Amino acid sequence: MSELKNDRFLRALLKEPVDVTPVWMMRQAGRYLPEYRATRARAGDFMGLCGNPELACEVTLQPLERFALDAAILFSDILTVPDAMGLGLYFETGEGPRFKKIIRSEADVDSLPIPDPQADLGYVMDAVKTIRRELNGRVPLIGFSGSPWTLATYMIEGGSSKDFRHIKGMMYSEPATLHKLLDKLADSVILYLNEQIRSGAQAVQIFDTWGGALSGPMYQEFSLKYMKKIAAGLIRESEGRKVPVIMFTKNGGQWLESMAEAGADALGLDWTTDIGDARLRVGDKVSLQGNMDPSVLYGTPARIREEVARILEGYGSGSGHVMNLGHGIHQFADPERAKVFVEAVHELSGQYHH
Amino acid sequence: MSELKNDRFLRALLKEPVDVTPVWMMRQAGRYLPEYRATRARAGDFMGLCGNPELACEVTLQPLERFALDAAILFSDILTVPDAMGLGLYFETGEGPRFKKIIRSEADVDSLPIPDPQADLGYVMDAVKTIRRELNGRVPLIGFSGSPWTLATYMIEGGSSKDFRHIKGMMYSEPATLHKLLDKLADSVILYLNEQIRSGAQAVQIFDTWGGALSGPMYQEFSLKYMKKIAAGLIRESEGRKVPVIMFTKNGGQWLESMAEAGADALGLDWTTDIGDARLRVGDKVSLQGNMDPSVLYGTPARIREEVARILEGYGSGSGHVMNLGHGIHQFADPERAKVFVEAVHELSGQYHH
Repeated sequence: MSELKNDRFLRALLKEPVDVTPVWMMRQAGRYLPEYRATRARAGDFMGLCGNPELACEVTLQPLERFALDAAILFSDILTVPDAMGLGLYFETGEGPRFKKIIRSEADVDSLPIPDPQADLGYVMDAVKTIRRELNGRVPLIGFSGSPWTLATYMIEGGSSKDFRHIKGMMYSEPATLHKLLDKLADSVILYLNEQIRSGAQAVQIFDTWGGALSGPMYQEFSLKYMKKIAAGLIRESEGRKVPVIMFTKNGGQWLESMAEAGADALGLDWTTDIGDARLRVGDKVSLQGNMDPSVLYGTPARIREEVARILEGYGSGSGHVMNLGHGIHQFADPERAKVFVEAVHELSGQYHH
Repeated sequence: MSELKNDRFLRALLKEPVDVTPVWMMRQAGRYLPEYRATRARAGDFMGLCGNPELACEVTLQPLERFALDAAILFSDILTVPDAMGLGLYFETGEGPRFKKIIRSEADVDSLPIPDPQADLGYVMDAVKTIRRELNGRVPLIGFSGSPWTLATYMIEGGSSKDFRHIKGMMYSEPATLHKLLDKLADSVILYLNEQIRSGAQAVQIFDTWGGALSGPMYQEFSLKYMKKIAAGLIRESEGRKVPVIMFTKNGGQWLESMAEAGADALGLDWTTDIGDARLRVGDKVSLQGNMDPSVLYGTPARIREEVARILEGYGSGSGHVMNLGHGIHQFADPERAKVFVEAVHELSGQYHH
């Protein structure tokens, strides 16, 4: 593999010195970019795009052509693992992801196979390899998966949910069945992410989109426990460098102390958490990634720069911060405003690194 | 008015001694009760039910016939004020509340009248009076409104939203217009809640359903500031008793310290916040209301009792706690399980009150 020309992102995740704060954006390859919409139209649908390594590579690289981003992220979906288990992932316009087969009983859980990452998810590995080749060392490539809890919400509810009725029903009435499912998912995610790392992913992020819907004790028992298991099972070095692990629980700002003990190198923060407070709470245990509200991109350029300055000042001096949005960039964001965000991070952060 | 026979709820909100912890459930008059569904069918639609004082009274009292609740809450909607401003509230099946007229510009904001609570919201006042008469002193009656920020989200988005694109766009690009709207809403809510109190409401709750979608500084500036203004403008004594004010920001658990300074007597907590930590953080400044995940009602009776015990133990000894769910009871909840919840609170809480 070619030498990495910009390693700020990996260095910041490991609290090694950097010249300026690195930045990338969750969902940076996405619908807000007209060139993405054009490629997606050629691919047919979303899964057609995920499943085609050349097109997945093309959209992964698109935002890097526009913005001085410090990392690329594999173009894929958080739900590839349950899809590979045979649940039949599809997307309904305006409805988000859905599964053809739904998991509701212990027998359903027992029937699920643990996917073989090469045989069942080879298209993801091909995309990782293609992207690494095309990146040619420009910036590191991030691999990712959904967290077991988050995957399970979609598998049990059948799609997105407001109240998580079925999975919480199982959690409060039949917890052993849910634990069995989560354990199988953790094992599957370990195999999946390790294969992404072997294929060329240089950091991995676990997206726990729905952990924040739980009470504290239930978060510990049904979400964090399984992310901890994953962190313990991952390959942590590849190509002679450490492979940092980022855990991101949306709406998890109240549990940062325990997340900092879960084996991740960095925690993602959404915008509801003050990054300065978060740094005090996690101490030297982990780096932090985030956390501008994606809606700030609807503001004026001056307002965007003000918000970037506020977050940089909140984190303060020294390495250990990767700037990001607190959630995926919105489909209605103006790419020119995203450019203002990325440029402001590099321009305003030098003073915090000596 | 007849003498209040059970004043545990009011006493706990004011940290006065009680025999057992009082309990009520948000949305306790609702679709999970077959008798509610029957009354609603007679009323036609939801607004027909809100607008008919006799039927609103009937559904308000229904849960009190089933469960030993310590408070009744006016059956109404959080969006009555913008409806009275002329926006045309209606409900689309599966879509939640919507407005016929949407607010997007300063001219739109300027055109909004401040509703006269007697002339424009008389049906609410009639419902309050009718319910007080029928309650006959059994338990106190809670009045309520949406918070200015929460009302504004629906007025600007036109209905429910996932990303709050339009209101946050205004917040980050045209904040003065949004402040003008929020200030007008705060003035309207003060008039509205004071008229509810004059009509017989014995406590009031401000529902800030969407304040938790903001960053900390934006929460302070665009949501809490206006709840503070309301708290300062409310009648705090009526019929010779204090009228406690409860502020509830869903997903606001990270901001309890500043909420405790905002003039409320009590703060509502959702289930993501540990009630013991919350009590340490707010000290003696306010009481706490909450905070069982409504989904626990899908669990076994033993599991429900276990969760009630955990929350009671978390709060600990002394007055200042009103048990509740952390959000409205779900429409699919089993009323028999709700009964288990209510009974467990009274049965298990005596040891914390001496």
